[in-house]
Amino acid sequence: MSILETINSSDDVKKLPEEALETLCGELRDFLVQSVSKTGGHLASNLGAVELSVALHRVYDTQKDRVVFDVGHQSYIHKILTGRRERFATLRQYKGLSGFPKPCEAEDDAFVAGHASNSVSVALGMAKARTLLNQDYDVVALIGDGALTGGLAYEGLTAAAASGEPLVIILNDNNMSIDPNVGGMASLLQKLRVKPGYFEFKRIYRDVFTKVQPVYRFNHQVKEWVKSKILPDNMLSAIGLDYMGPVDGHDVHQLESVLRWAREMKRPVLVHVLTKKGKGVGYAEEHPELYHGVGPFDPKTGEIRSGGPCFSEAFGKSLWEFAQKDGRIVGITAAMASGTGLDYFAQRCPRRFVDAGIAEGHATSFAAGLAKQGALPVFAVYSSFLQRGFDMLIHDVSLQGLHVVFAVDRAGIVGGDGETHHGIFDLAYLSTVPGMTIFCPASFAELRAQLEQALFEISGPVAIRYPRGGEGEYREASTEPEQILREGRDVTLLCCGVMVNEVLKAARLLEERGIRAEIVKINRVSDQPWEQALASLKKTGRLVAAEEVCAEGCLGVKLISQAAEREIPLRGARLLNLGKGIVAHGDRALLMRDAGIDAASIAAAAEALCKEGKERT
Amino acid sequence: MSILETINSSDDVKKLPEEALETLCGELRDFLVQSVSKTGGHLASNLGAVELSVALHRVYDTQKDRVVFDVGHQSYIHKILTGRRERFATLRQYKGLSGFPKPCEAEDDAFVAGHASNSVSVALGMAKARTLLNQDYDVVALIGDGALTGGLAYEGLTAAAASGEPLVIILNDNNMSIDPNVGGMASLLQKLRVKPGYFEFKRIYRDVFTKVQPVYRFNHQVKEWVKSKILPDNMLSAIGLDYMGPVDGHDVHQLESVLRWAREMKRPVLVHVLTKKGKGVGYAEEHPELYHGVGPFDPKTGEIRSGGPCFSEAFGKSLWEFAQKDGRIVGITAAMASGTGLDYFAQRCPRRFVDAGIAEGHATSFAAGLAKQGALPVFAVYSSFLQRGFDMLIHDVSLQGLHVVFAVDRAGIVGGDGETHHGIFDLAYLSTVPGMTIFCPASFAELRAQLEQALFEISGPVAIRYPRGGEGEYREASTEPEQILREGRDVTLLCCGVMVNEVLKAARLLEERGIRAEIVKINRVSDQPWEQALASLKKTGRLVAAEEVCAEGCLGVKLISQAAEREIPLRGARLLNLGKGIVAHGDRALLMRDAGIDAASIAAAAEALCKEGKERT
Repeated sequence: MSILETINSSDDVKKLPEEALETLCGELRDFLVQSVSKTGGHLASNLGAVELSVALHRVYDTQKDRVVFDVGHQSYIHKILTGRRERFATLRQYKGLSGFPKPCEAEDDAFVAGHASNSVSVALGMAKARTLLNQDYDVVALIGDGALTGGLAYEGLTAAAASGEPLVIILNDNNMSIDPNVGGMASLLQKLRVKPGYFEFKRIYRDVFTKVQPVYRFNHQVKEWVKSKILPDNMLSAIGLDYMGPVDGHDVHQLESVLRWAREMKRPVLVHVLTKKGKGVGYAEEHPELYHGVGPFDPKTGEIRSGGPCFSEAFGKSLWEFAQKDGRIVGITAAMASGTGLDYFAQRCPRRFVDAGIAEGHATSFAAGLAKQGALPVFAVYSSFLQRGFDMLIHDVSLQGLHVVFAVDRAGIVGGDGETHHGIFDLAYLSTVPGMTIFCPASFAELRAQLEQALFEISGPVAIRYPRGGEGEYREASTEPEQILREGRDVTLLCCGVMVNEVLKAARLLEERGIRAEIVKINRVSDQPWEQALASLKKTGRLVAAEEVCAEGCLGVKLISQAAEREIPLRGARLLNLGKGIVAHGDRALLMRDAGIDAASIAAAAEALCKEGKERT
Repeated sequence: MSILETINSSDDVKKLPEEALETLCGELRDFLVQSVSKTGGHLASNLGAVELSVALHRVYDTQKDRVVFDVGHQSYIHKILTGRRERFATLRQYKGLSGFPKPCEAEDDAFVAGHASNSVSVALGMAKARTLLNQDYDVVALIGDGALTGGLAYEGLTAAAASGEPLVIILNDNNMSIDPNVGGMASLLQKLRVKPGYFEFKRIYRDVFTKVQPVYRFNHQVKEWVKSKILPDNMLSAIGLDYMGPVDGHDVHQLESVLRWAREMKRPVLVHVLTKKGKGVGYAEEHPELYHGVGPFDPKTGEIRSGGPCFSEAFGKSLWEFAQKDGRIVGITAAMASGTGLDYFAQRCPRRFVDAGIAEGHATSFAAGLAKQGALPVFAVYSSFLQRGFDMLIHDVSLQGLHVVFAVDRAGIVGGDGETHHGIFDLAYLSTVPGMTIFCPASFAELRAQLEQALFEISGPVAIRYPRGGEGEYREASTEPEQILREGRDVTLLCCGVMVNEVLKAARLLEERGIRAEIVKINRVSDQPWEQALASLKKTGRLVAAEEVCAEGCLGVKLISQAAEREIPLRGARLLNLGKGIVAHGDRALLMRDAGIDAASIAAAAEALCKEGKERT
């Protein structure tokens, strides 16, 4: 029996003899690689967090103490140690374990995570509550170096320092590039720096740096730069946080001692931990960027099953095509060059590429400044992350009608990443921005055509929203605001984007049942007249709107309200969508079935609507 | 003829002999006080920015160079110097000059302003556009010390420093409390500190500090703390910005030289300027907080016409009443203790009061942390500023259904502050937040009653939205989700909040014309059944929704969609609201008339709807 098999809680980790810890860490790495190689997930960052996670459970009791993860993709080891080892094979799967902390999954998960830079603010709130309510537990925030580029982290760090609340902030710094001038450090910790392990890091780090792709370097440079500027003895000590570090993040004994010490200080303390992404697994150490978020792979060789073509890639290639013709185009990412396909552009046109770090607010205002002075900025960003730029969309971009193009990737259900990452609020919040035009392409060719329109034909703010993954049966490319994709007379099926594929299937199902459905595909949401959609409603009198967004701001409601103002009578309407907008993780098809927006559900709703009408007449 | 009367542009300022500048500054102060005493506006900060504004126009040409104001309430002198002196008596009035920079008003205004902390990001975008497009002009960001508490400023500053773009960032520091250890400063500038003027500042500053109210100190402490931590030789120099200062902000000659020097450096430079709020006018220097945003006052004595009771005050008193009974309640503000009425609470319960600085994102996540651990946080915040917390509302508060109460002040049209400050997007963005309950009180008593419900009866996130200013004829207090306020049979008038006052008037106008209107007042927007509203529609068949919000997410659309799904036929609907949501500044009544949501417009729309119906039948 392995040591790992005996561990089901913080308590079990605490009971282990010190000399068993390295063995446990080795077992954890093996377990992680075997499991993630089957399910996919965040490998490299979790390999880097093995010793840190074990040390956390040696010092804290996560049933009682509150450990707040930032982003949270580095919580796998924590999950494995707290009673979820046996369910770990279900990671990121439908009804399985989440890839992020979830309080509903275990009391050991103190808070939801998924977006970056919020952990210190949340942890400070918890620490303040503890003090006000006279309770007794410890609060820890665990934040990565990337998340430090977000202004929210700065707001949290300054507030934490000012508060004086007992609170330990662990900076998990996995770039291993630290300023040799570390000030204000205790002598014990200073000694760590001259240990052989430290130099080993330095060597590996240099090796990695010289081998990796240019895109990795872009992203890397931003983080490096910010970090080199704010690490001691610069900002962290300057804002008044007690600083401890740097600590070797792969020496579990040292980590344990330092964390115990930090906890005893009963003040806001920052512990700077150096870890190595992919630690202990050759291919992951060499190419951490490939094993950050990864699909299934061969655990021995690291060979990754290649994915098919995707919208992100189609976007990147199209943007480069247009950028060659127009020197005003600037590509902006918030630390997601590769995820958004903008790496393709960046490699070919570094001068007109900007990585803003995890700072969507800044990226939006920056784009507004560019646009005001005649450049043509394109900010490629995940739907759920652009929520951070909502105020800037209105205040900086929209009020002056500035022509900024937002390439809104990961719109709709994203699958395994789950509720924090689904892009299902964007239709609502983008519709709220005055003068915003929203394109909803449903194929790669349509994305290209609509991007061209967005760049060169539309004025004011424009968003193009498209999903994670690839295209379906619809491969056409419309540049019209709306189109009748199939004629019918019994019921109007309304959709946009890749939902058209489900709706096409639904129409065929309905045809088999003798119901002729008309399909209206909305391609652009703005001040459009809704002419074809309204004409269709006049004809059929019945509406089924099938949408991969939350109910608020959905197209169905927009169309119904247009119909009412024009006094077009409706014999019935069904709005099929994601309701409030909280959707679990897992396979997209299964989630769509559960939400009642797959082809079968659409057909069933339309059939019921048509039957009701017949029964009445 | 005064010197001021000869000045209509940057050019005119440049042509003046050096020795005329002090006289000009004196004339500007007199002009400002006389004018603002009649119109109201931001007095103290503009008195502090007289010399800085003159120096800016000596060095830069605002027709060509881009000076980006942060928040922008300190742009009055700039406006007076650039051809808008004669129109200055219309400041903040309907169809008059805006109290904030507006590119549509003059080319000299480089960018809109109103919200805080964005200026560096915007200016950096402009500087980057200039470089990419090979153009030749200077870019300047002018940011106050308060705005530095926002994470967006940190994102902008770090990005600016990393960019290497020629860009001058002027920090207008009007708290005059600087760290004596100023590092990295040129010897010329060091000498400034031992000038008698500097000590004069110190003395006045101490005097002010000992006299002012506790609330002023709260706010002040946050800014002081952040500033003391990030000013040199801490963050600003640490992040790699060339630092120049501190400069005496009331010595126009020194300011001019330093600005010229900064411009010549052709790099990202931060110039730290010390100014005194209210400078040169006794009462404003003594109580800068009273003359920050001020109504009309006596220019000689400073006596301010007192305003009537307002919703903010009603909120503050009610919250304190409930906080006395429940020790879990924590009051949070983002640098707006006095504006939100939270000062009343803060003075009585400082231990449970938190001023987060201008950091709405942090305040929201912090509140989520408090709520997760059993406290009862109430974040009082202006509607348009909470837009900064949109992502945190969804990610940190809503996904876990945490019980945080948002006291959303300044909902609806705010008047003189104009388009950046109107609270007309909140119904849309708050409705998008999963599980959010939104209360819309229409009277002080109703605010108290609904706050009690929000605190003690509702679970999950709750917002209470209420307007600037006082109550109207409606003084009741309903705790029902919706109410029929007046019965009728011809048309349903739908409203929420203080719009009820217009709707009551409209109903009387309609009665005179023989039309019996039914009034449905929505008090709470959530998963409500809309029972009474739908019953009313069944009865009347006609809907006029009159709302002081943008079209997206308005109640009218929500109700129409409910009616369609329940197959309740409508003979006609008119949605009267603020359309896209861009509304100018000025008197609320006039803006409402223009938008077609005043009593007369509501009555006219209802009458037309009823007539149409009759003509058809």
